Amino acid sequence: MSRIVMKFGGTSVANLDRIRAVALRVKKETDAGNQVAVVVSAMAGTTDQLVKWTAEASPMHDAREYDTVVSAGEQITAGLLALCLQNIDVSARSWLGWQVPFRTNNIHGSARIEDIDTSRMIERLEDNIVCVMAGFQGISDDERITTLGRGGSDTSAVALAAALKADRCDIYTDVEGVYTTDPRIVPNARKLDKITYEEMLEMASLGAKVLQTRSVAMAMNHRVRIQVLSSFTDAPGTLVVDEDEIMEKQVVSGIAYAKSEAKITLVGVENTPGIAGDIFGPLAAGNVNVDMIIQNISEDGKKTDLTFTVPENDVDKATNILKESGHVKYAKLMSDREVVKISVIGVGMRSHAGVAARMFETLAAKGINIQVISTSEIKISVLIRAEYYELAVRALHTVFGLDAHPE
Amino acid sequence: MSRIVMKFGGTSVANLDRIRAVALRVKKETDAGNQVAVVVSAMAGTTDQLVKWTAEASPMHDAREYDTVVSAGEQITAGLLALCLQNIDVSARSWLGWQVPFRTNNIHGSARIEDIDTSRMIERLEDNIVCVMAGFQGISDDERITTLGRGGSDTSAVALAAALKADRCDIYTDVEGVYTTDPRIVPNARKLDKITYEEMLEMASLGAKVLQTRSVAMAMNHRVRIQVLSSFTDAPGTLVVDEDEIMEKQVVSGIAYAKSEAKITLVGVENTPGIAGDIFGPLAAGNVNVDMIIQNISEDGKKTDLTFTVPENDVDKATNILKESGHVKYAKLMSDREVVKISVIGVGMRSHAGVAARMFETLAAKGINIQVISTSEIKISVLIRAEYYELAVRALHTVFGLDAHPE
Repeated sequence: MSRIVMKFGGTSVANLDRIRAVALRVKKETDAGNQVAVVVSAMAGTTDQLVKWTAEASPMHDAREYDTVVSAGEQITAGLLALCLQNIDVSARSWLGWQVPFRTNNIHGSARIEDIDTSRMIERLEDNIVCVMAGFQGISDDERITTLGRGGSDTSAVALAAALKADRCDIYTDVEGVYTTDPRIVPNARKLDKITYEEMLEMASLGAKVLQTRSVAMAMNHRVRIQVLSSFTDAPGTLVVDEDEIMEKQVVSGIAYAKSEAKITLVGVENTPGIAGDIFGPLAAGNVNVDMIIQNISEDGKKTDLTFTVPENDVDKATNILKESGHVKYAKLMSDREVVKISVIGVGMRSHAGVAARMFETLAAKGINIQVISTSEIKISVLIRAEYYELAVRALHTVFGLDAHPE
Repeated sequence: MSRIVMKFGGTSVANLDRIRAVALRVKKETDAGNQVAVVVSAMAGTTDQLVKWTAEASPMHDAREYDTVVSAGEQITAGLLALCLQNIDVSARSWLGWQVPFRTNNIHGSARIEDIDTSRMIERLEDNIVCVMAGFQGISDDERITTLGRGGSDTSAVALAAALKADRCDIYTDVEGVYTTDPRIVPNARKLDKITYEEMLEMASLGAKVLQTRSVAMAMNHRVRIQVLSSFTDAPGTLVVDEDEIMEKQVVSGIAYAKSEAKITLVGVENTPGIAGDIFGPLAAGNVNVDMIIQNISEDGKKTDLTFTVPENDVDKATNILKESGHVKYAKLMSDREVVKISVIGVGMRSHAGVAARMFETLAAKGINIQVISTSEIKISVLIRAEYYELAVRALHTVFGLDAHPE
C-alpha cells in the first residue's frame, strides 16, 4: 500500500470526458490498494477566461478579488472529479484550499504556502476516501482566498505530497515525461527515465514547460519523488529524484532554450566604482529580473560597455528605469529582442571538464556567434541570435550524445 | 443615511457590461450616503452550465459536490462586481457564504439559513465599504458549501437584510416590478406601486416568477421592506409591505396562473372511513405535493370520485405510488396535464363578499368550465382546461378593474 498524490493539469481535465478518464486512472490506483489524493487544475481555458474578466473589470485589480474569481475554476473541477469518481463507485470528496486548510501568506496572486493541516484529510485517506483538492489555491490568515500564481497547481501537488508524506507525486500532463530537449525541434529527442532535482530545476527555469520551477525546488527541499507522465497514454514517465538514485549519470542530460529573453546594451558607460549598483539596483527595485550580465572594459579603462538580459516583457520598463534614474551616464542604450538563450544541463558536468569548450566549438562550427555566456555548476548558457536557435539546439543535442537510437 | 441591501439576478449581471452598469447603480446609493450590501446571482447561463455538468458527471449526484461546483458561479460574480466597483472608486469587497459566515443546515441543494454572523460585515459597512455577497450559498456546520435551491439569491438577500436590520431590500430584476398579471398575456396589465406580503406570497406560490416564495415568507416574518425593480430602467418599482402601509386596498390585486399543474382523478373509490389518508399519506411520504382536492360522493354513498392536482413533473411518481400502495381500491385512474390553475388574489377579499361568485360568473359567461376550486382567505383558485387560460386571465383582469387606464 502506498500513499500517492496525483496531479492533473488543465488539458487533462479539459472537459467532462477527460475528467471521466482521470477518474478511471484514479480508480486504478485505489483498486491497487493505494491511498490517493488528487490535485486538479481548472478546465483548460477557464482560468484564461476568468483572468480576462478580472482585467476587464479593473485593469489595476485588487489581487484579493482576482483570487476570489480565478480560484473558482479549480473549485469546479474538484467537485466534478469527485462526482465522476463517485459515479464509478470510488468514494471521494472535494477539498477547497480553505477547507483543508492550505495556509499561505497574504501575497495575493502569488502566495507562498506556509502550512498545510492535513489531519482531517489523512483521516479520510485512511478510510479509503479519495481526496480531490482544488489546486492553485489557499487561504490567508485573514480568511481570504489566495492563489499561488500561474502553474501553481504543480506546487500545490508537491506541497500536499510533502505534507502527506506521500510515497510519490505523479504529475499528469499532456507530454509523456521530461525530454532531452523540445521534441518539436529535435524529433529524435529522448524521454528521460530519471532526472535529478537539480537538473529539473535548471530545465524548468530555463524554459522547459513541463513543471513549474517552484514546485521542483519544493520537491528537492522535501525530497518528494515526482513522476511526470502523460494523462493521454499509458507510457511510463520520467522520475525526478535524488542524484544518488541515478546510477549512470549522463554528462549532459538536456538542452533547454528560452525565447522570452531580450538583451540590453549600454554603450560608453563611465567606468566608476559602484556603477553596477547604480544600474542594477534600480532595476531590482523595479522588479526587473536581470539574468545574464557581461561587461567589456575599453582600452583606456575609462569607458565600459555593459550587456545584460531581461525578460522580453520587461524591456520597456527596464529602459524607462535606466533613462529616468539619471545616475547612470552612458552614450547609447540598445535593446535586442531577437535573441535566444540556449542551455546545456547535466549534473555530470561537475566531474567532466570540457563541456563548455565542446559547446562553444560546436556552435562556432555552425557559424553561430555567442553574445553572452553564463555558467553554473551544472549548466552552461549562451545567448545567440534567435534565427539560429533550432540549429544550435539540434547540433548540441547530437554532439552531447542525446539523440535517440533508432530501435 | 440608510442601510440598503441590493440584489441583482442573473440577467442583471449577465456579462461585464451589465456588471459595470450594476456598479454604477450601487455607486448612486453610496454617493447618496447610504451603507450598501449587494447580493449577486451567477451570470445568466452559468448556473445552468454548472448544473448540467454535475448531472453528466453523476446522475445520482452527491449534493455536497453539486453545491461545491454550482456555488462557483456566484463566487465569480461577487469578485467581478467588487472589482468593477473599485474601478469607479467605490470601496468594495466580496464575501462568500463561508466567509460571512452564512450558516445553514446541511440539506445540501436546498439548505435553510440558520444564522448569519454579520458583525464583520457591519464593521465594513460602517467604514463605507460596499459588501458584495455571493447569493444562493452558505456553509454547513461541517464546513462544506451549501446552496439554497434555485432562485435562492432572493432568499439570501432578504435574510441578509433582516440580519443587517436594513432599511430596504431592493430586488433588481428584468421586469419593472410586480404586475396585476403577466403582461405577455394582458398587455394593459398594470404595475403595482405597493403589494402586501400576503398577496405577494400568493402571487409567488401561484406562479408569478418575480420573487422566490421562500424569500417573501422570510420578508413577511422579519418585516423586511422589499422593493422589486428593474436593473434595466430607472422606473420606480413595486414595494412589498405590511397591509397597514396600503391606504386604499383593492379588492383584487392580481390574477395569477400556473401551467405546471396536472390533475389526477380516481374513479369509483370505495368510500370507507380513512380512505383520504390511505391516498394522500403515501403521496406525502413520497414527497408529492398535492394542491387542490375535491371529492364527489356517488348517489348510493358507497363509491366516490376523487380529483386532486400535483406538479406536472410528479404525475408518473404519483401514479406509481397509488398503483403500488395497494391499499386503495378504485375502478380507474385518470391523469390530465392539460389544465391550468387560475387564481384571483387580494387582501380586500376579506371584507368584500361576492368575489368568488363574480369570478365563476365571468368564466361561465366565456363558456369556461371549472374543474376544481380551492380558496383561502385572500385568494380563489380554479382549475380549467389549458386552452382557455389566456381568455380566462384577460376576462378576470378586466372584470376586477385591473386594466390600466390609457394615459
